Amino acid sequence: MIPGWRHPAPEGWIDLVWDALAEDLGTGDLSSACLNPDWAVDWEIEAQAEGVLCGCGLAYYLLQDEEGDPDDGTVEALMDDGEPVRAGDIVLRGRTPSARLLARERTALNFLMLLSGVSTLTDQFVRRLDGLATDVVDTRKTVPGLRALQKYAVRCGGGKNHRMGLYDGVMIKDNHIRAAGSISEAMARVRHVIGHMTAVEVECETIDQAREAVDSGADIVMLDNMDPFTMQSAVRELKGRVVLEASGGVTLDTVRAIASTGVDVVSVGALTHSAPALPFHLEVR
Amino acid sequence: MIPGWRHPAPEGWIDLVWDALAEDLGTGDLSSACLNPDWAVDWEIEAQAEGVLCGCGLAYYLLQDEEGDPDDGTVEALMDDGEPVRAGDIVLRGRTPSARLLARERTALNFLMLLSGVSTLTDQFVRRLDGLATDVVDTRKTVPGLRALQKYAVRCGGGKNHRMGLYDGVMIKDNHIRAAGSISEAMARVRHVIGHMTAVEVECETIDQAREAVDSGADIVMLDNMDPFTMQSAVRELKGRVVLEASGGVTLDTVRAIASTGVDVVSVGALTHSAPALPFHLEVR
Amino acid sequence: MIPGWRHPAPEGWIDLVWDALAEDLGTGDLSSACLNPDWAVDWEIEAQAEGVLCGCGLAYYLLQDEEGDPDDGTVEALMDDGEPVRAGDIVLRGRTPSARLLARERTALNFLMLLSGVSTLTDQFVRRLDGLATDVVDTRKTVPGLRALQKYAVRCGGGKNHRMGLYDGVMIKDNHIRAAGSISEAMARVRHVIGHMTAVEVECETIDQAREAVDSGADIVMLDNMDPFTMQSAVRELKGRVVLEASGGVTLDTVRAIASTGVDVVSVGALTHSAPALPFHLEVR
Amino acid sequence: MIPGWRHPAPEGWIDLVWDALAEDLGTGDLSSACLNPDWAVDWEIEAQAEGVLCGCGLAYYLLQDEEGDPDDGTVEALMDDGEPVRAGDIVLRGRTPSARLLARERTALNFLMLLSGVSTLTDQFVRRLDGLATDVVDTRKTVPGLRALQKYAVRCGGGKNHRMGLYDGVMIKDNHIRAAGSISEAMARVRHVIGHMTAVEVECETIDQAREAVDSGADIVMLDNMDPFTMQSAVRELKGRVVLEASGGVTLDTVRAIASTGVDVVSVGALTHSAPALPFHLEVR
Amino acid sequence: MIPGWRHPAPEGWIDLVWDALAEDLGTGDLSSACLNPDWAVDWEIEAQAEGVLCGCGLAYYLLQDEEGDPDDGTVEALMDDGEPVRAGDIVLRGRTPSARLLARERTALNFLMLLSGVSTLTDQFVRRLDGLATDVVDTRKTVPGLRALQKYAVRCGGGKNHRMGLYDGVMIKDNHIRAAGSISEAMARVRHVIGHMTAVEVECETIDQAREAVDSGADIVMLDNMDPFTMQSAVRELKGRVVLEASGGVTLDTVRAIASTGVDVVSVGALTHSAPALPFHLEVR
Amino acid sequence: MIPGWRHPAPEGWIDLVWDALAEDLGTGDLSSACLNPDWAVDWEIEAQAEGVLCGCGLAYYLLQDEEGDPDDGTVEALMDDGEPVRAGDIVLRGRTPSARLLARERTALNFLMLLSGVSTLTDQFVRRLDGLATDVVDTRKTVPGLRALQKYAVRCGGGKNHRMGLYDGVMIKDNHIRAAGSISEAMARVRHVIGHMTAVEVECETIDQAREAVDSGADIVMLDNMDPFTMQSAVRELKGRVVLEASGGVTLDTVRAIASTGVDVVSVGALTHSAPALPFHLEVR
Repeated sequence: MIPGWRHPAPEGWIDLVWDALAEDLGTGDLSSACLNPDWAVDWEIEAQAEGVLCGCGLAYYLLQDEEGDPDDGTVEALMDDGEPVRAGDIVLRGRTPSARLLARERTALNFLMLLSGVSTLTDQFVRRLDGLATDVVDTRKTVPGLRALQKYAVRCGGGKNHRMGLYDGVMIKDNHIRAAGSISEAMARVRHVIGHMTAVEVECETIDQAREAVDSGADIVMLDNMDPFTMQSAVRELKGRVVLEASGGVTLDTVRAIASTGVDVVSVGALTHSAPALPFHLEVR
Repeated sequence: MIPGWRHPAPEGWIDLVWDALAEDLGTGDLSSACLNPDWAVDWEIEAQAEGVLCGCGLAYYLLQDEEGDPDDGTVEALMDDGEPVRAGDIVLRGRTPSARLLARERTALNFLMLLSGVSTLTDQFVRRLDGLATDVVDTRKTVPGLRALQKYAVRCGGGKNHRMGLYDGVMIKDNHIRAAGSISEAMARVRHVIGHMTAVEVECETIDQAREAVDSGADIVMLDNMDPFTMQSAVRELKGRVVLEASGGVTLDTVRAIASTGVDVVSVGALTHSAPALPFHLEVR
Repeated sequence: MIPGWRHPAPEGWIDLVWDALAEDLGTGDLSSACLNPDWAVDWEIEAQAEGVLCGCGLAYYLLQDEEGDPDDGTVEALMDDGEPVRAGDIVLRGRTPSARLLARERTALNFLMLLSGVSTLTDQFVRRLDGLATDVVDTRKTVPGLRALQKYAVRCGGGKNHRMGLYDGVMIKDNHIRAAGSISEAMARVRHVIGHMTAVEVECETIDQAREAVDSGADIVMLDNMDPFTMQSAVRELKGRVVLEASGGVTLDTVRAIASTGVDVVSVGALTHSAPALPFHLEVR
Repeated sequence: MIPGWRHPAPEGWIDLVWDALAEDLGTGDLSSACLNPDWAVDWEIEAQAEGVLCGCGLAYYLLQDEEGDPDDGTVEALMDDGEPVRAGDIVLRGRTPSARLLARERTALNFLMLLSGVSTLTDQFVRRLDGLATDVVDTRKTVPGLRALQKYAVRCGGGKNHRMGLYDGVMIKDNHIRAAGSISEAMARVRHVIGHMTAVEVECETIDQAREAVDSGADIVMLDNMDPFTMQSAVRELKGRVVLEASGGVTLDTVRAIASTGVDVVSVGALTHSAPALPFHLEVR
Repeated sequence: MIPGWRHPAPEGWIDLVWDALAEDLGTGDLSSACLNPDWAVDWEIEAQAEGVLCGCGLAYYLLQDEEGDPDDGTVEALMDDGEPVRAGDIVLRGRTPSARLLARERTALNFLMLLSGVSTLTDQFVRRLDGLATDVVDTRKTVPGLRALQKYAVRCGGGKNHRMGLYDGVMIKDNHIRAAGSISEAMARVRHVIGHMTAVEVECETIDQAREAVDSGADIVMLDNMDPFTMQSAVRELKGRVVLEASGGVTLDTVRAIASTGVDVVSVGALTHSAPALPFHLEVR
Repeated sequence: MIPGWRHPAPEGWIDLVWDALAEDLGTGDLSSACLNPDWAVDWEIEAQAEGVLCGCGLAYYLLQDEEGDPDDGTVEALMDDGEPVRAGDIVLRGRTPSARLLARERTALNFLMLLSGVSTLTDQFVRRLDGLATDVVDTRKTVPGLRALQKYAVRCGGGKNHRMGLYDGVMIKDNHIRAAGSISEAMARVRHVIGHMTAVEVECETIDQAREAVDSGADIVMLDNMDPFTMQSAVRELKGRVVLEASGGVTLDTVRAIASTGVDVVSVGALTHSAPALPFHLEVR
């Protein structure tokens, strides 16, 4: 495995790396005209704030890859994805021809900052639930094109993943229920088609709905935007018969209270749509 | 032009839309098994917070596109990118087969939320400079794969764009200068290769550097992380001979003071790496 | 939805159609040199053996698609995927310019023959289990590149789908168990990472293994290549606590005996790796 | 050349391998969560039935490829494509990190089983013609996307290839003839456009047609679905003036009788549309 | 068929058109910022020199294609590929939104100029052979990526095509012969593998070689860089037994003398590697 | 950096190389059937005319690349792009398996011949301006798909590059001016949107236009198809206030007279649309 990654790594990230580099390079790095292609430099990437590292293996790959040229330099990963970082920590260092380094620096940092932002925010949510059995999970509210990487970052931050997309799990939402007539009718239609490896979740706004979902065979019930009192009742009645997921209005301020109702899982959209970047910096020594 | 876009729109966004949809759909929307493919619904997309709209034309396209089926529904864009929105504003509405709508809803919202987040944050910076002649511009600190769209969102928020990438402008940074020996040496090497349509910017940390950059023919001088006093002196000396750009440590709190030194341009990385999503919501009526 | 498809259709098939056509056309249909491009013909596609139809919507799309030319002809789907066909049944008919028709005929028929072969064989297995509650499911032993389409064909034949790939379900096999030390150790490691929407299956060769799998929280237990007596015992002990899947040595001759043990699911690799093509024929009238 | 392949190998197969692996991996192998990425195992791939090997070089490539990681293991090909195998023969063996091996095993086996199925069936046809000068050739009735590989498998089984697609040879069929008015008119139109490197075949159902085809300059005449008596007459009259190809209703039972009429070539669609998979198995030792 | 094309058109050109447009547009047409997107203009494309038209249908497609917007304008093709043009001839005209037109104009003209350059030069060679039975054919010395289009242009200019690439015909060159030991040995090895639809050409520098090629079953003999006297002798001896192709040193000045030896085909590399562009011009009225 | 290239090399050329090879190879090199895959040969590539070399690094890469096979041979680049060559000069030599070499030879030569043709013609223009300060630049009249490579060839020939496409510079042409009403109106609209890194050029046919362009803030003025007297006057008035570019009717015969007016830049479309190929040849020793 490429150094810096946390096992298991997501698939398909290599194309994203080259696409991102190509987006920046276009027809070529004009500024490299002032560099002698033979001049190699020592460099290091430093964290500029506290958080959880993610994207280290990706940056390692981008900065060391060679394309057949034996003189493309050397890179060392000093930390692994998922480890805590503080301002001043060196996460990667190496020696690389300057034209090559300066052309790839921005792309490497853009990934590092975005992904570490996600893992850092996830870690903050997870730490609010210290001592509770509730898992923090992500949603499908992700940056277009980067879902698998962002969900990897959630895992690096100590969270778990909800379904990856529309294809690897069933979620029956209010609009589905309205279309099918009822939860039990929707469940019946789904069960007619879905195989034995696919989990089915139903989004419920009331305890009656949650009860109907369980009775018609749901594997997971989402308690959607419920007030704490209702959620408490739902948990008391259904806990253990089905997996219970709380969703809606979850912030760093509210997450512990919500989890304390006893739900198994809390899902948080902000992990992947509103995490601020964690700053990193490449320094030539 | 497709409704909802602000002229001129970025190129190449259509592939991003289909890639994002494919990322979510994978081998298919399992939950659609509970829907009758003929059942069409009326829907609308509503803003849930105040900001500047971006992504409306993109969402219009995604929700109306047909692939040869005459019954794929109708969509109407009620606003255009770049317009202010308030919570409760309806930006798009339509009538669409439910299986199709529910498969595309999340992708459309993910773009809308991300892009409107960028245009909203840009607008906040721009409004801080009300009455000044200074432009707010973006950087290359963008989400991998979405740079052209994010830079379009910056324009929708009233900002302007710095170079798109390494290929459409020269930026000589501290590491380039160190490699070449001096600013004037770096400028000489670049001018030897670069054509007459390419602008050259030099990143300067001192007034001496700025002076050398201007003397050796730079078109733009970046005053990088300078303290206000130094910046003021640089502006007094160089204003009008070259375009002056301030960079580093620019926040909503500091931007007006920085611009008040008289620089022509202030560049802000946060516009594209740390803007929180602006929330939107799709409602079936 | 495009006529001829059975809901829900698989995603991503359109690229496969164009890739297959491009594979046949290469730099162009040399034989079309003997045709006048204006000459249109009436045609029909006829089944030449008994089975279950699959690929009808795909062939409809390929033969009617237009690329901007208003004179590309008309096509009518007379049947839908999943319906039984007999030799002589007309499944599609239309009127199309001859150069266009003869260039696309072979590609359309190749898909129809392959997919109907899969749905026909699936139907034969399903009918052997008439009156039993056991489902017939497919495996990952599919034709490279055509998995989603073949799994759709399995559904058209009355079967259900096992996981689509390595990404949408966990299967702990003998080699995984050996690597981790034991089933319970493997289960513990997986549960540490896997979210609440992912089902976990364990491949078991003995009743002891099956028992351990259930105790450590497996959702599905595969009874792999077990003799009938052992399988019977396993079902008697575990039925209802977990989903039971029989696998290995399943043929049209043995499938009913295996299902009669009471397993919930029987998986059959031959559905997608060894189904002979169902013959179809395009006739110009 | 990569070990295991038979010269000359088909072009373009590498993309098919990675596409097939990506189809299986999707966003990642969830089951690998129970494996330590450092744990390497010894393995071998064993044939489980008698036939002709094809796909060995492809599997070698997939299991040994490294992507820059020096620890991706070693693989050895013990046989070459085109060689006969019996149940129990080991065709490949190696030592590979287990997470990597278990993620790639199924894709490698799926290719091996499909391609060896084609070469095995081809070999059975070829052996029926032992002592005759007639060649067995394939058709365009291939699995979408895999034509070049399947036609390579036909060569490994001792057959030869008909044209690869619509672009590398002319075939004037009954519908072309009807459109052009007559065989000689169709031939005249084709000859007007086609260069000197392109062979032209005419599909004929009667001796009169065959005669007209030869007289108007066809290079090959297909005797399509002719009864043995008519075919015999056609061969007697035209042998040596043109290449004669028999087509239609060719099975293992009928092929020798058909070839015995003296035709130069017999074409068989079943080679590539209905060959059952030849079973292989990967065993960790 | 799209207006302007000559039957049969090459396959696969549509991707080339979009790729070329994307190459020019990059992240967008900056100059369009000075245009109102609603402003439509009347325009026409005019030839600026005498020659043979090629690329008209391609330009028609590029300038009329719509992507779902009903207001993308109208285009009319006034001529077809393969027709003679003189300076001042209008080949296409239309009415199109100006931002759209000015973004696509250059790409359309670049194709028209390149392809008409090829067809014009081909036509000049063909006309030198007026009254002779010899065909003018192209070679594989083509512009990377544009081979099928250039070979189409050769047909539009009255030439014919040699093989498209390495895959649709065998050419045994001097280096192949040296490797195999002799022409007859090379022919034997090739015939062992090649099917009945593939023509085989041998490159010969002497009459002895040509004789050996014919005797070992070559379909075509290339007389490579032979002096006129030798070529004459070769034709006298071999004409009618095999197709004879002259190659090497063919210019507008020498082509008629070479063809007059009686060879069947003359191949000319310059058609596709050194034809100057034929100038065209887009005028807004 | 890969040997043979001149710094800075264009980005993105590697995909072009593989696409071009794939275009030639299709489903495989049929002629290689007469070669033993183990037979390696010594070869060299020789220039056959005088000019300036371009494409040497590209050919080096294509002929040495290995795809994991340790026995793919060795290649040596004896010259670098941008160096003068004479007939008989050896630019590359190596030892390569013959089947591999003969499959890649044509693609390598096609690039070398095309690119060296461009650099050679550029060099001829540049040498006509010996002693003058005027730069020779290219245009957007390039071969579709090869623009970045052709513009690199222009640099190798001593020219400079105009903008790469519509995205990296503004050019306001006659049609833009007509649409916007006037040059100053067009400039105002553009400046409203364009950032500080983007240069703006205005195409002017009269001195009045040139004056208006300068007054409204253009960075570059194109003197389009002006007669020498007018151009002289324009230079006298505007030199030093703006960059002046001459365009239209520039040939090897006229270029010196045009440059002698004192313009800063002369742009020449023929460099990239009508440069004849420079011949090269691969010889097996």
